Amino acid sequence: MTRNTLIKIIQEKKSFLCIGLDTDLAKIPSFLHGYHDPVFEFNKAIIDHTQDLAVAFKINTAFYENRGIKGWTSLEKTVRYLDQYRSSIFLIADAKRGDIGNTSQMYAGAFLADPPHGLGFDSITVAPYMGNDSVKPFFYHKGKWVILLALTSNAGFEDFQTKRLESGEMLFEYVIRQSMQWGNIDNLMFVIGATRQDMLSKVRQIVPNHFLLVPGVGAQGGSLKAVAQTGLTKDFGLLVNSSRGILYAVDDESFPQAARTEALKIQQEMAIYLQHLL
Amino acid sequence: MTRNTLIKIIQEKKSFLCIGLDTDLAKIPSFLHGYHDPVFEFNKAIIDHTQDLAVAFKINTAFYENRGIKGWTSLEKTVRYLDQYRSSIFLIADAKRGDIGNTSQMYAGAFLADPPHGLGFDSITVAPYMGNDSVKPFFYHKGKWVILLALTSNAGFEDFQTKRLESGEMLFEYVIRQSMQWGNIDNLMFVIGATRQDMLSKVRQIVPNHFLLVPGVGAQGGSLKAVAQTGLTKDFGLLVNSSRGILYAVDDESFPQAARTEALKIQQEMAIYLQHLL
Repeated sequence: MTRNTLIKIIQEKKSFLCIGLDTDLAKIPSFLHGYHDPVFEFNKAIIDHTQDLAVAFKINTAFYENRGIKGWTSLEKTVRYLDQYRSSIFLIADAKRGDIGNTSQMYAGAFLADPPHGLGFDSITVAPYMGNDSVKPFFYHKGKWVILLALTSNAGFEDFQTKRLESGEMLFEYVIRQSMQWGNIDNLMFVIGATRQDMLSKVRQIVPNHFLLVPGVGAQGGSLKAVAQTGLTKDFGLLVNSSRGILYAVDDESFPQAARTEALKIQQEMAIYLQHLL
Repeated sequence: MTRNTLIKIIQEKKSFLCIGLDTDLAKIPSFLHGYHDPVFEFNKAIIDHTQDLAVAFKINTAFYENRGIKGWTSLEKTVRYLDQYRSSIFLIADAKRGDIGNTSQMYAGAFLADPPHGLGFDSITVAPYMGNDSVKPFFYHKGKWVILLALTSNAGFEDFQTKRLESGEMLFEYVIRQSMQWGNIDNLMFVIGATRQDMLSKVRQIVPNHFLLVPGVGAQGGSLKAVAQTGLTKDFGLLVNSSRGILYAVDDESFPQAARTEALKIQQEMAIYLQHLL
């Protein structure tokens, strides 16, 4: 998906909501366990009931890998089910991959190449630690995006990401500055956690025009209002993810409607923050 | 596998060779394409002909993920085929995973939990960027190992890993020092590329007793002799990986014998370096 299309969708849906399909067999309503593929049944219902409110879906690969071949089958079926909505849905493989060049190329093929060669995601999250040749192969897929980990929303983000370099800047700032040379605003986004507003504003100084994928709103404690105030640009430039809060709102057959209610709440709040930009 | 068992195997086999099963459908001998699962057939032959010369096999997950469900099937069959050799083979999932706590827990289950819940690897390579809660869940599996990326062998290693922090030390040194608090010599190894001997000696000053997994010998240009001289400890403390040089020695039906010849060459060289320690 092109940057222009993504901007247009945000405009039309008045939403920059990304829904994370961190689908956990242990957390989905128990009646679904009667189905052949409970995870896929769950995902289908969530997708059908929220796709008009979200601009992106993010598939957390760990939750599928955890179930081996069965899990990869659910993942593939979910991606193919999403195809019907792809003109208005940006699809993220939240895989946090990154390895030496020839290996990153294999990962890029797996997630970004279109079927039948790969899964055909629009984008993949990539870990920066191994440097340029671990990230660049993901750019070889035209029209696809790298979403690079910069500042994450988890408890351990301060262990390395905010360490100061000799130059005085923090590691995550340096990661952003370096990687801006490998990609551009049309194929590179950054993961910036919602849990620290002061740092988000630092990030916006470095990358005023890049899209940011922001996890950590909701279950992890970040404020949507703060993120919107600091992170939105004239081209919107934000995808804010919510996973657990939407997926597991209730534990019975009404879960698709409950998920929609939660997603709608977030979308309506987003519409307010977008008002002056539309 | 315990540290003591690993040490005993190195002693008995006079080898610290790890063979990387980076099995690429495009590179295996073409006659194998007649089989139902060419990658598995290839792996079986390599394993059978080299398992007495190697102390570890490393499965690079990217090469399997690249082929989707088919690839994951080959991976799972390969791991189960290796079960017959597991008393004398240390098994590494070279997956470079790492994510927020609840997600790392899912990855840990996928790779480290024993069947039927997981694949039952002895160890997994983990990326450090997200900090302590992204690494710790991998330690929850008793008797299993984290192999943390510290200094890698690829071209881009200098982008971030060797950047100096305010304190004067390089990022990879700091990563090692911090993570030593999360694990110990019985469950934590480090990936240290073979391409820079001066840095390997720095690493040995920080972690005189940890095992190191060293890629980059062979195709990537590192010297086995230099790595052995600098990296070996009284408990050996090294696993040196070779992938392409062993796997793709020839392109015909004699590939298992050719792989054995290459592995034997490396094992015999290793035996010389081990002599004064045995």
